[in-house]
Amino acid sequence: MRRQISGFSNPTVKAIRALRDKKHRREERRFLAEGLRLLTDAREWGRIPEILLMAEGREPHPLLDALERAVDDAGGEVLELTPELLAKVTGKENPQAVAGVFAEWPTALDAIDRTAPLMLVAQALRDPGNLGTMLRTADAVGAGGLILLDDCADPFSVEAVRASMGAIFTVPIAKARWDEFLPWLRAGPSQLVGASLRKAVPFRRAAYQAPCFILVGNESRGLPEDYEAACDLRVTMPMRGRADSLNAAVAAAVLAYEVDAALRP
Amino acid sequence: MRRQISGFSNPTVKAIRALRDKKHRREERRFLAEGLRLLTDAREWGRIPEILLMAEGREPHPLLDALERAVDDAGGEVLELTPELLAKVTGKENPQAVAGVFAEWPTALDAIDRTAPLMLVAQALRDPGNLGTMLRTADAVGAGGLILLDDCADPFSVEAVRASMGAIFTVPIAKARWDEFLPWLRAGPSQLVGASLRKAVPFRRAAYQAPCFILVGNESRGLPEDYEAACDLRVTMPMRGRADSLNAAVAAAVLAYEVDAALRP
Repeated sequence: MRRQISGFSNPTVKAIRALRDKKHRREERRFLAEGLRLLTDAREWGRIPEILLMAEGREPHPLLDALERAVDDAGGEVLELTPELLAKVTGKENPQAVAGVFAEWPTALDAIDRTAPLMLVAQALRDPGNLGTMLRTADAVGAGGLILLDDCADPFSVEAVRASMGAIFTVPIAKARWDEFLPWLRAGPSQLVGASLRKAVPFRRAAYQAPCFILVGNESRGLPEDYEAACDLRVTMPMRGRADSLNAAVAAAVLAYEVDAALRP
Repeated sequence: MRRQISGFSNPTVKAIRALRDKKHRREERRFLAEGLRLLTDAREWGRIPEILLMAEGREPHPLLDALERAVDDAGGEVLELTPELLAKVTGKENPQAVAGVFAEWPTALDAIDRTAPLMLVAQALRDPGNLGTMLRTADAVGAGGLILLDDCADPFSVEAVRASMGAIFTVPIAKARWDEFLPWLRAGPSQLVGASLRKAVPFRRAAYQAPCFILVGNESRGLPEDYEAACDLRVTMPMRGRADSLNAAVAAAVLAYEVDAALRP
């Protein structure tokens, strides 16, 4: 279905714009993603927006045509807005802008692809930018997913979606509590590897085994001691400076590429 | 000198609060850093705030005493504010908060410690969070500094200082244009290694040599072609996913730890 909308008071437009507000977004369980390339990636991965937004008079593009067809086929809606209105909804002054409203998808543990050689696991990760960056890294190393333990930032938040650079659509995501995660983990082959500053093996000399679950902790507190104790392996990276810490997403990436090299030489 | 200030209209307090505004901060060439641990790290590295801010009635602490003495010795100022006023200045509701106003320091190329085995170099890096994260990584791998080429984000911005987790004080920073950097680089022993998606050596199989300068490009465009051509070595990381890219600070860190392992086995 295709509609043209020119007024800001239109209820659909209001509802979409409200998705930029965190509380409202969580209640709606919908999120906004922007850009033709991003939406095309999403489509190829089978994620079709419920609503496709674009500016009236936008130049035609074969990828946009494909997107419109996909939205139509899925029973979604295509909204043509005036450029001014679109700019208000997306917050960007780009008349070529395209945006989509997506429904969140299920994030139970069975979303994870356990046949992959490695997985990322984050515990109480608070920064949505770090979360998005970890999704992007998970995509780059071909991880079977990102598992979010305990109280993490929201992967569908504007900041996480933006930092993921499209990986929100390509990387399986699961949310779980520790006491739910651990039995699930141990129900199949698994090596749980914790990034640690305590007694640990140098990360370049550790014996990694697939499927390897790389676990990093909260940005300020690191991993709880009992979580570390449950790991099959604790690894540490050299800290040659004074600050004695790495950004959580950076630590995950350095470890992930090390595991990648060990398991896919 | 020690002063107690209770009114928000005080010109010093106004000037400090204005440092949270980007334009004003740049004109003043001063920045605000917060936290006793951070300020203590700074002191140990020889960076003393011009103005030390704390709340009246704050609990005594030996590290705070040391900080006060250092500020006094350097001819700086200690301001005691009401907790309400301090919260307004720092933007944080923490009566134990301590903050310092620092003058920026010179960022010419001779700030870099070329005796270190590796250095990080960023070209047109736009995100201050990425910049701060790269400083933190540079600290962790013991790099001789971070060199910012062309039009990068401001390392003294609130976001960069925060993301650096103190590394702003410990890692030498230089700003340079490419045509200034290249002759400086070639005036001494140097291997320039570019992170590239074009024709490049797999990063795990490259022959790194100290002092190794790891060069990463802009977040969306990567490195300009002529910059890549000037590199002694172009390296690439496996991209097994669909997005075909890594966060710039993540790419720098993965490479830096690889170089670290090669040069300091």
